[in-house]
Amino acid sequence: MAMRAAVAGASGYAGGEILRLLLGHPEIEIGALTGNSNAGQRLGALQPQLFPLADRVLEPTSAEVLAGHDVVFLALPHGQSAAVAEELGDGTLVVDCGADFRLADAGDWERYYGSPHAGTWPYGLPELPGARAALRGARRIAVPGCYPTAVSLALFPAYAAGLAEPEAVIVAASGTSGAGKAAKPHLLGSEVMGSMSPYGVGGVHRHTPEMIQNLSAVAGTRISVSFTPTLAPMPRGILATCSARAKPGVTGAALRETYEKALAGEPFVRLLPEGRWPATSAVYGANTALLQVALDEAAGRIVVVSAIDNLTKGTAGGAVQSMNIALGLPEELGLSTIGVAP
Amino acid sequence: MAMRAAVAGASGYAGGEILRLLLGHPEIEIGALTGNSNAGQRLGALQPQLFPLADRVLEPTSAEVLAGHDVVFLALPHGQSAAVAEELGDGTLVVDCGADFRLADAGDWERYYGSPHAGTWPYGLPELPGARAALRGARRIAVPGCYPTAVSLALFPAYAAGLAEPEAVIVAASGTSGAGKAAKPHLLGSEVMGSMSPYGVGGVHRHTPEMIQNLSAVAGTRISVSFTPTLAPMPRGILATCSARAKPGVTGAALRETYEKALAGEPFVRLLPEGRWPATSAVYGANTALLQVALDEAAGRIVVVSAIDNLTKGTAGGAVQSMNIALGLPEELGLSTIGVAP
Amino acid sequence: MAMRAAVAGASGYAGGEILRLLLGHPEIEIGALTGNSNAGQRLGALQPQLFPLADRVLEPTSAEVLAGHDVVFLALPHGQSAAVAEELGDGTLVVDCGADFRLADAGDWERYYGSPHAGTWPYGLPELPGARAALRGARRIAVPGCYPTAVSLALFPAYAAGLAEPEAVIVAASGTSGAGKAAKPHLLGSEVMGSMSPYGVGGVHRHTPEMIQNLSAVAGTRISVSFTPTLAPMPRGILATCSARAKPGVTGAALRETYEKALAGEPFVRLLPEGRWPATSAVYGANTALLQVALDEAAGRIVVVSAIDNLTKGTAGGAVQSMNIALGLPEELGLSTIGVAP
Amino acid sequence: MAMRAAVAGASGYAGGEILRLLLGHPEIEIGALTGNSNAGQRLGALQPQLFPLADRVLEPTSAEVLAGHDVVFLALPHGQSAAVAEELGDGTLVVDCGADFRLADAGDWERYYGSPHAGTWPYGLPELPGARAALRGARRIAVPGCYPTAVSLALFPAYAAGLAEPEAVIVAASGTSGAGKAAKPHLLGSEVMGSMSPYGVGGVHRHTPEMIQNLSAVAGTRISVSFTPTLAPMPRGILATCSARAKPGVTGAALRETYEKALAGEPFVRLLPEGRWPATSAVYGANTALLQVALDEAAGRIVVVSAIDNLTKGTAGGAVQSMNIALGLPEELGLSTIGVAP
Repeated sequence: MAMRAAVAGASGYAGGEILRLLLGHPEIEIGALTGNSNAGQRLGALQPQLFPLADRVLEPTSAEVLAGHDVVFLALPHGQSAAVAEELGDGTLVVDCGADFRLADAGDWERYYGSPHAGTWPYGLPELPGARAALRGARRIAVPGCYPTAVSLALFPAYAAGLAEPEAVIVAASGTSGAGKAAKPHLLGSEVMGSMSPYGVGGVHRHTPEMIQNLSAVAGTRISVSFTPTLAPMPRGILATCSARAKPGVTGAALRETYEKALAGEPFVRLLPEGRWPATSAVYGANTALLQVALDEAAGRIVVVSAIDNLTKGTAGGAVQSMNIALGLPEELGLSTIGVAP
Repeated sequence: MAMRAAVAGASGYAGGEILRLLLGHPEIEIGALTGNSNAGQRLGALQPQLFPLADRVLEPTSAEVLAGHDVVFLALPHGQSAAVAEELGDGTLVVDCGADFRLADAGDWERYYGSPHAGTWPYGLPELPGARAALRGARRIAVPGCYPTAVSLALFPAYAAGLAEPEAVIVAASGTSGAGKAAKPHLLGSEVMGSMSPYGVGGVHRHTPEMIQNLSAVAGTRISVSFTPTLAPMPRGILATCSARAKPGVTGAALRETYEKALAGEPFVRLLPEGRWPATSAVYGANTALLQVALDEAAGRIVVVSAIDNLTKGTAGGAVQSMNIALGLPEELGLSTIGVAP
Repeated sequence: MAMRAAVAGASGYAGGEILRLLLGHPEIEIGALTGNSNAGQRLGALQPQLFPLADRVLEPTSAEVLAGHDVVFLALPHGQSAAVAEELGDGTLVVDCGADFRLADAGDWERYYGSPHAGTWPYGLPELPGARAALRGARRIAVPGCYPTAVSLALFPAYAAGLAEPEAVIVAASGTSGAGKAAKPHLLGSEVMGSMSPYGVGGVHRHTPEMIQNLSAVAGTRISVSFTPTLAPMPRGILATCSARAKPGVTGAALRETYEKALAGEPFVRLLPEGRWPATSAVYGANTALLQVALDEAAGRIVVVSAIDNLTKGTAGGAVQSMNIALGLPEELGLSTIGVAP
Repeated sequence: MAMRAAVAGASGYAGGEILRLLLGHPEIEIGALTGNSNAGQRLGALQPQLFPLADRVLEPTSAEVLAGHDVVFLALPHGQSAAVAEELGDGTLVVDCGADFRLADAGDWERYYGSPHAGTWPYGLPELPGARAALRGARRIAVPGCYPTAVSLALFPAYAAGLAEPEAVIVAASGTSGAGKAAKPHLLGSEVMGSMSPYGVGGVHRHTPEMIQNLSAVAGTRISVSFTPTLAPMPRGILATCSARAKPGVTGAALRETYEKALAGEPFVRLLPEGRWPATSAVYGANTALLQVALDEAAGRIVVVSAIDNLTKGTAGGAVQSMNIALGLPEELGLSTIGVAP
């Protein structure tokens, strides 16, 4: 019998994508949908792409409404998840798409988010060493940030194998849906179409400590990260260009072999054949990460580029994948590896 | 009395932009326009935006057609400029938008371009130390590549002042016009809209040795460059994110002061006020480079982001600016610093 | 047991979309994939979004390769389908995404396509009166053109009910994938991004007689069509604005009621609630058509706007939907009504 | 000696475009810049493309601030112009980019704008019959709406010559800047990129009565207009597809000749050579309107397509062109016919 899932924050981009995926999930039935400012409205007016749910009405986000579901997805502004989760017992699997339970270091949390640390939950990036095991049977899941997903998948094999020096330099381009659905002047179509711009430069973006945490864990040593996010004129997608000095003696062949081994058997990550580089269009709406690696011998650097859909593998797809693992379902259930392209 | 300028390669994107600028230049009258496969066609069918030249007919590219002009702009495929220039005497100022005369090192040229080295001409990036002086009275100008323009402007102050370690990491996003007007499947609108993708990864892009040459010259020591270009879903613009480890003791205040001093008085380069970052839309069609700098203290890196229009400051605008200097005209003549935005 | 389907023309946009849908179809197993100039290449290099088929190799398009399948989809240039279909017996369901078998009138065919008329097959737009019955058990299907799909769905209820005068005026905007994957200069990203332009103006577009045929059949009288297609800066989607003078006495309420009745029960067409208008983003990758109607009383015209994905409901989705009917499968099998948005 | 111009509403898209043009106008010096919610801010933070004005500070919009200028441009929300204009005497030329003084019919005004009618000023579309004469020496100018500019230029020759029946059908696509800079959810980049959608369907768009007024005046009889605006995924540009039944006996040759004669000598309107159709990219940032006409003999309709930049010829360029006429300056001063393309 199908399990029932509720989605808190169903009117936003993450919530909409979660619902798109759950509608195609054979073991999930969609329960309560909640919003705050949009409570009382029909979903058809807010998420016109979710045809089968057009007549569903949003309820206010509250523990009463969310209670009694097998799974609750939280797609709420940072800082609101802990209070909701507390009222939902261990009978409910809570999958938090917010940042609240991602960082283990309370100091990092407070420095970057400016509020008290809520704790740490099993981390929903199954491809990282040890992560899949921690997710099995879990009742709470912290879904990674979209940039940390793209970056950690790109660099963990190199750091796990000790091929790279501990200073990573990352420049990533994101589609505008990563900035959410709140109407802000700099996110208007007139402003973003035809334009690239950086933001959060110089180490201040909140996803920086999450990348450091992930890469340091696999490396077994502190990795520093210089991270520059940029806004690209497209609705979806992250292209992350990640590099680090190669350790002495690393060869291109060894690099490639390391990545092939580290990613072997992963259903949602693909190292492209040599000579081909990933494009975000190829993963549009898919739960896939595409990777390619190169050794720049003149500059002495390993360069890895990864492409994901920030809303799918970067948020909702990663959430459903982790949910599947936690519930003991086949990991790929309800998830597609096929992009909608062109 | 106005000088007459010919444009070889008038049907391409660089040629079209040169003509757009020359049409607004008070001291230039437009002479011969040439093409190869398009010879015999009216410009109106090829460059519909150049309203006043709609009825002009393209002639074949040849020394006879180009002779007798005060200035000849070459917007030809790499490798074709030397032969044409040779037949034009010193009475003609030749401004080459191709790569042929940019690199001083014959080995670099041959490695990256696979043909014999043609030589070196005065380099048309007036903002670099010494460049303006070399351009005064010049009869030959090598216009820089679009990426090297964005990157050299971003990093030369840091390297000239000795603030940065000699390993630069650069990730740049370019609009599709940088790839030219030849119809290739991966440049179709269906492929590029909504998608970001890298190319020429791992040190193989031809603009890499040009960046190394420029930065090494100002630094007085060999600078290594890890350069990753990406294709962005927009027609124009380059956003270059450039970083390097800061030398010990460098402070944010010193960094900013260095940039303010290095760029003071430059008519076409602007360091933005603190807290604001450049967007390519702000320089759409303008000969302007916008810069911002940050010191990422945790990662120990200087991060500089620059935005230019690849066709204007990155090609045609830089060409006209350098022409003005060579001809003894006011440097800003016929060039606008104002972008067409939004 | 699953049926096997071959796709001829698997490297193009229509072929790629057919494969994307078939990969999610529970009763279809993918057999031979063919191409012409691309025969011998791996699909991963041509359709990087089709992750599970990355290692499949394209065969040359020939009757031998296509024989022995339960279903063959033809996504070939116009004029090539008849020869292939002839060699495939009635044991194979042939679904032609080309135009060859759409038009009943040989004169129309020859005037617009300039080649001998091949014949007429059951027409794959199940929502038209009588179409579904003709498709049941069919062994040959002519998939409609993308524009005729959008326009016929928009106007057939008005003409079937006799509400509109027999002169329709249609202006439609299409994403660039409608123009196919062949590299042509005017389809370059640099040309189409940020630009709208018309083409085939004045009654010369080949989809015009197909619209006239469909609307005249439901009206029982000759409908004239003024059709202007425009190219929009997006990869996918058609927005068709269709209008005709209202017959005397038609009211807004009667108009709406007519559409509600005509579309009731249709799984893939939705009349939006009053006050909301369709956007192509809401049907991105979905087999859905969204409609809205208005009566402009001052101008005396019925205005209907429809939105579809040109590659899905407009081509590959319509093809699969019609295949389902022909094979006696549930009509909605393997097809989603949910758009990938934003 | 240069005249001084003030711009009220300098932080919006129309105000920004007016300033871009005035910065290149040889007879105008820029005086006061005003805003409301943005008063006190530097222009560099609001209009980063206006490099030379980056350090100018916005003042509050008031008659005191605007007084004493030779020209005042009003780029204010509808309904605010009358009060400001009243306090500026006839010594000041007031150019209103709002709708307040466009409509002669008070009933039309009240029906569409819901406020008392302010009056009528000379109409700033010089190409219309009689308009240029009315603008000479004028002290008040009503700048047309962007859609009425595109549509009136497209259809006035046909109606002036009596070639078309009095029912026009118009479908136009506009870039998003036409919707202004106020942050609204449906105008977010995530919503508009990759999507086309209609709005104001069924005769309710406020520009409808303005089109009717213009076309009826040249026709000498009441013209009905069915107008459907659509939002296109681009920052700028309007493509208007306009059609009407041809009067009996009209030929394609007569149609073309009529347009050639009507537009002869117009500096900013160009009928393209036969076989070429306008694209909005060709007029990006230019004060140009490109037109093409066709006679669809089968459908019996005249089809005219026009392309303008909604912010330039559609607003700010039309305003400056009309100002030039009013002030007795050469009509083309400070205005370019050259688009920034690709």
